[in-house]
Amino acid sequence: MTGGAPDEFGLIAELFAPLAAGFPGALGLADDAAFIAAEPGFDTVATMDSMVAGVHFLPDDPPDLIARKLIRVNLSDLAAKGAEPRFLMLSAAFPRDVGQDWLRAFGAGLAEDVRTFGIHLIGGDTVSTPGPLTLTLTALGRVKAGRGLKRSGAKAGDTVWVSGSIGDGALGLKAIRGLLTGISAAYGEFLSGRYRLPHPRVSLGPRLLDLAHGAMDVSDGLVQDLGHLCRASGLAARIEAARIPLSPAAAAALELDQSLLASVLTGGDDYELLFTASAEAAETLADLSSQLGVALTGIGRVEPGDTGKVTVIGADGREIPVVQGGWRHFGGGSQSGE
Amino acid sequence: MTGGAPDEFGLIAELFAPLAAGFPGALGLADDAAFIAAEPGFDTVATMDSMVAGVHFLPDDPPDLIARKLIRVNLSDLAAKGAEPRFLMLSAAFPRDVGQDWLRAFGAGLAEDVRTFGIHLIGGDTVSTPGPLTLTLTALGRVKAGRGLKRSGAKAGDTVWVSGSIGDGALGLKAIRGLLTGISAAYGEFLSGRYRLPHPRVSLGPRLLDLAHGAMDVSDGLVQDLGHLCRASGLAARIEAARIPLSPAAAAALELDQSLLASVLTGGDDYELLFTASAEAAETLADLSSQLGVALTGIGRVEPGDTGKVTVIGADGREIPVVQGGWRHFGGGSQSGE
Repeated sequence: MTGGAPDEFGLIAELFAPLAAGFPGALGLADDAAFIAAEPGFDTVATMDSMVAGVHFLPDDPPDLIARKLIRVNLSDLAAKGAEPRFLMLSAAFPRDVGQDWLRAFGAGLAEDVRTFGIHLIGGDTVSTPGPLTLTLTALGRVKAGRGLKRSGAKAGDTVWVSGSIGDGALGLKAIRGLLTGISAAYGEFLSGRYRLPHPRVSLGPRLLDLAHGAMDVSDGLVQDLGHLCRASGLAARIEAARIPLSPAAAAALELDQSLLASVLTGGDDYELLFTASAEAAETLADLSSQLGVALTGIGRVEPGDTGKVTVIGADGREIPVVQGGWRHFGGGSQSGE
Repeated sequence: MTGGAPDEFGLIAELFAPLAAGFPGALGLADDAAFIAAEPGFDTVATMDSMVAGVHFLPDDPPDLIARKLIRVNLSDLAAKGAEPRFLMLSAAFPRDVGQDWLRAFGAGLAEDVRTFGIHLIGGDTVSTPGPLTLTLTALGRVKAGRGLKRSGAKAGDTVWVSGSIGDGALGLKAIRGLLTGISAAYGEFLSGRYRLPHPRVSLGPRLLDLAHGAMDVSDGLVQDLGHLCRASGLAARIEAARIPLSPAAAAALELDQSLLASVLTGGDDYELLFTASAEAAETLADLSSQLGVALTGIGRVEPGDTGKVTVIGADGREIPVVQGGWRHFGGGSQSGE
């Protein structure tokens, strides 16, 4: 039962207030709550994710990137629902020795992404902790009423699609830890950058409303998350390892060490969109891909079968055994660093 | 970077899912986000508060009471806005040694208050932490569009009102720590109960929409919070110590030790409503008080003066010097245990 750190809390108030300036309902972050007017014709989409230093990010990661990753992880969940991001609420439990420089860098990261994504900080809380830095973000978005995408919408026969490239986040964490040798420095930096700063598919998500059946983002690992989607939809899936889109950096790493395929399949931290759509949607999706400049790749198919089971087929046509994480969630988000 | 605790996370999913069963938009807590339909004519009111073990509650407090206090602290913020509570999102960072019994008791506390207040858990996150139990709740309520109460609405000449009794929470914490001697065991239990389980004024808040000018809840201490309200309103206030409503238990404690008045004035954890209203509202407020069975007491007046300054007048007519906390917040909530 100890007091806070008044100077730091004053600085935080100073750093955060401008992030609310564009939205009057935030009351300048100087009240205990925010007011958001109803928008007829839209549903609010609400998501919440926490990150703990030493669990979800490295304690000495650059503070601006920690802030931006926190935002982006949540925006990725909104994108997977087909929602546009609108508002953030941030609760931060800061260790007592958090420094002013650290806070300024953290605030700058928040500011950058608030600007990048055209969103507003509308509230939150700041507390002291004797433990590690613990950050919780609630993100609110909006989607046309009744049209939001869900995990549970997949249909038998649907093609399984992923955006961007898969495996970079997991390989990036290995690179940061010095466990990825042999690839070029540039590739190593690309991969670690993908771990530290995801690029949530905020433009793509809302464009999938008429196309995708089941959808979610890949945060826990492709196979686990496809398993979640299948389980929610009462179906199974079969994907082909050779069709999983890899970045040049990831491809180079796998060429040197085939066993890294396990990290690609189950490693997580991709923050790409995973969705299913009927075969007829393929052409429209190809158009959308070139329009947005976001790769969209069909990697397999949803089918009847053991609910939630994901079968991965190798280049030789044989099944690749994958240890598939169990369902360890409530309300989504990842509860562990990898 | 360590994994979670699968068994515990499975149990949590089991315990939490029923709390979402009454609201289809929660998607059974089995997706990454919740959908909330717009309600034309209403604003959504959003608030967020964190509590850290050892900072905001005692680590060995009963888990059901920790859960209920977390909910109630947030509902108190909604009540202060005149809002009805509707939805909760909970993010919990659990230490790895959290036991199944502890989790069951915690879940039972959540369930009890979800039922009591007629609200739904619609999402959140569960993570592991090497640090202390850290809980963050986002509460969403609704209020008639454009009518929500704010700190900033106070007008010069308004009467300052408080609900219930003030000081019980702070004295309760002293009682729990064995620092309050001489009062009866029953009084000690009453006070510690008030610390451990606040009673947010959820019925009163929405009834103040036509009556109150400025409003907030008392969480950091009467004088500090009245200072916040005055600062937001560009005014000062003068209150009379003798008019501050005390419970019989608090009155007994003060009779034995007059110095405890400082705790009453600045101790916090009251979760009563503090609001200002024109003198003409007094009669209506008296009626409302008897209708709801909630004491409402005028304790002073808002007036022009040093912005944010609160003057406390003693029974002898002289000013009581009070060390008034500075503004250490962003977005409300308390950042320290007392």
